[in-house]
Amino acid sequence: MAAETYAKAGVDVKRAEEFVKRLKNQSLRQGHETLWEAAGGYAAVYPVSASRAVAVTTDGVGTKLLVANELSKFDTIGIDLVAMCANDLICVGAQPTIFLDYFAIGKLEDNVADEVIAGIVKGCDQAGMLLAGGETAEMPGLYAPGHFDLAGFALGLVSKSKLITGCEIRPGQKLIGVASSGIHSNGLSLARKVIADDKASWHDLLTPTLIYVEPVNEILGRRPEAIKGMAHITGGGWRNLFRLNDHVGFHFENRLPVPDILQKIGQTVPEEEMYKTFNMGMGLGIITDDSHQQLVLDCFNEAGFTAQVVGSVTDKPGVITIAGSQIVIKEE
Amino acid sequence: MAAETYAKAGVDVKRAEEFVKRLKNQSLRQGHETLWEAAGGYAAVYPVSASRAVAVTTDGVGTKLLVANELSKFDTIGIDLVAMCANDLICVGAQPTIFLDYFAIGKLEDNVADEVIAGIVKGCDQAGMLLAGGETAEMPGLYAPGHFDLAGFALGLVSKSKLITGCEIRPGQKLIGVASSGIHSNGLSLARKVIADDKASWHDLLTPTLIYVEPVNEILGRRPEAIKGMAHITGGGWRNLFRLNDHVGFHFENRLPVPDILQKIGQTVPEEEMYKTFNMGMGLGIITDDSHQQLVLDCFNEAGFTAQVVGSVTDKPGVITIAGSQIVIKEE
Repeated sequence: MAAETYAKAGVDVKRAEEFVKRLKNQSLRQGHETLWEAAGGYAAVYPVSASRAVAVTTDGVGTKLLVANELSKFDTIGIDLVAMCANDLICVGAQPTIFLDYFAIGKLEDNVADEVIAGIVKGCDQAGMLLAGGETAEMPGLYAPGHFDLAGFALGLVSKSKLITGCEIRPGQKLIGVASSGIHSNGLSLARKVIADDKASWHDLLTPTLIYVEPVNEILGRRPEAIKGMAHITGGGWRNLFRLNDHVGFHFENRLPVPDILQKIGQTVPEEEMYKTFNMGMGLGIITDDSHQQLVLDCFNEAGFTAQVVGSVTDKPGVITIAGSQIVIKEE
Repeated sequence: MAAETYAKAGVDVKRAEEFVKRLKNQSLRQGHETLWEAAGGYAAVYPVSASRAVAVTTDGVGTKLLVANELSKFDTIGIDLVAMCANDLICVGAQPTIFLDYFAIGKLEDNVADEVIAGIVKGCDQAGMLLAGGETAEMPGLYAPGHFDLAGFALGLVSKSKLITGCEIRPGQKLIGVASSGIHSNGLSLARKVIADDKASWHDLLTPTLIYVEPVNEILGRRPEAIKGMAHITGGGWRNLFRLNDHVGFHFENRLPVPDILQKIGQTVPEEEMYKTFNMGMGLGIITDDSHQQLVLDCFNEAGFTAQVVGSVTDKPGVITIAGSQIVIKEE
C-alpha cells in the first residue's frame, strides 16, 4: 500500500488553516472590548470586567462520527465533543463552565439521540460543565439516513491572574506530556482510510477523548504560575506546540507510549506525517519550570492520568526534535 | 395536491421539542451559579457577577442551506445564521456581543466558504457582533458533494436591570408585531416540498432573515421597562408567543402583511398549519404597555423596520385568536 497522508485522505489542513486565518482577519470590530491575547488561540477571551473574562470556543468531532455510525455505537461520541471544547478552554487558563450542543440529523431517531446526549452529559460531568441547552435540527435531505453531525460550543471563565498567555515560555523550561487514550478526535479521515479493512480495529478508533479539566483546575487553583503554556494536541498533531510561543522550539528526550491504534496506523503512514496528524500518545503538552514540575506531575497522576517530563523548550523557533530519531517536525 | 403539514415534510416538531425537554432536565449541575430565569428560554443566562450575566445560544439555519445549494448562492445564508442567534439573544434582553461559527463541508471549496463567511461578517455587522472565531471542518464522507452545514453560537451580555423575564406580562398589554422579510429560517423543509416545481419562487425562499438588534438595543438603552416580553418567531410559528408567560394568551386585531412567498405556500398548506410553522409576516412580537408603545414603534420605524400594534395580551392561557378568522392557535 502506498504511503498515506492526511491530504490524500481528503483533508487539506493547510488550506483549512489559511481559510481560518482569513476569517480571523475579518473579526475586528469597533464598539467592543479588545479580546485578551491568550496562548495558542485555543479560545477567544472577552473581558467582562477589568479582572475577568469569558473564554469561548467551538469544535466538532470530525469523521469520528462515521466510526460511531459504522459501529452503531453512539454513547461516547458526546464525550469526544465535550472533550474537544473543554480541553481547548483550559489551554487559555479558563475554567470550563457552560456547554451547548448542536445536533443535526436527517430524521430524529430516539435511541441515537438519547445515546449521543447521554455521552454529552457524561462529558460535561467529567469537565464539570453545565449543559445549558442546545439545538436539535432535523434536516431531511442534507444528511444521509442514519448520518448526523455534532458541534459543541463551550464557555469558560478566566481571571486575568490565571490567563495563560505563553509569553513566559523560555528555553530550558520543561515539557510535560499527558497521555492520550488513543486517537482522540483528530485524523480520523486518514485513520479510517488506512484501517478500512481491519474492522476489529474500528472499536479502538472510537475510544473517547480524555478530558483534562480536573487536574488543570487543581493546578491553576493552587499555583496559576505553574503552567507557562499548554497545548491540546488536536488537528496538526505535535505542531500544536508551535501555537504557544513564536520564539521557541521543543526537544523530546523521551516519549509517552504510542497507543496500539496509532502504531497500527503508523505501519502505513510515514512517521513524520504521524507526528503532524496524530497526538502520538500525548493528548496534552504542558510547559512548566523546575520549581513547579512536581506539582504538575502530582496533580495529573493523582487524578488518574499518566504524565511525565518528556522534554524541554529550546531556542530553535518552529522546530521539534526527538532524541534518537531523524524526524524533525517543523512549522509550515 | 393534498394538504401539506410540517410533519409530512419530514420534520416532527413535537418530537424534537420533547427531546430538547429531556435534554434540559439533565442540565442541572452542582458547583455552578444558578442560571437566571429569562422569558422564553431563548438563551441560557449565566451570572458573572451579582448584577451581570452572559447569555448564550446556538442555532442553525435548517434546510435553507439546501435552497442556497440549489441556487448556488451562498452570500446571504450567513446573515440568516447570525440572525437566528442574535434575535434569540435580544429576547432575554441581552446585547449580542460575540459570534462563533461551525462550518462543516465535505471538501472545502474556497468560493463557497468565502461567500458563506462574507454573509456571516455582514450579519455580525448588522447585529453589532464580534466574529471571534469558529471551526471549519472538512468531513469527506459525511456530506454529499457541495453540501455543507452551518451552526452558530452567540454570546451576549445582560445586566440584571435589563433582563426580560416575562413575569410582568399582563392581560390588556399591547402586542407589537415587527415585519419579517419573508420566510426567514424556519419551515424550509415544508416550503421546499410545497414549491418544489416552482423554481422561480426559490429565490424568495433565500431572502435573508432580518436582524432586529439595533432598535432593541436602542429601546433597552433608553427604557428597559418598555419591553415586557419579546418573541423571536422561529420554528413553531406564532406558538413562540406562548413561551413568554404561562398565564396569558393573545388576540390579534390586525396582522402585518403576509409576504408573497408565504401566501404562495399557503395555497397548499392549511391556514392553521401556516401559523404553527411560519412567521406569517411577523418576525418579532413584542409585549409592551400603553405608556411605552410609541417608543417601541418609533425605535423600530426609525431604524427602517415596519412595526405596528397588532393585538393585545388576553387572560386565556395558551390560546391565540385572530379577529375575523376562525383560526385558533393553541399550545400543544
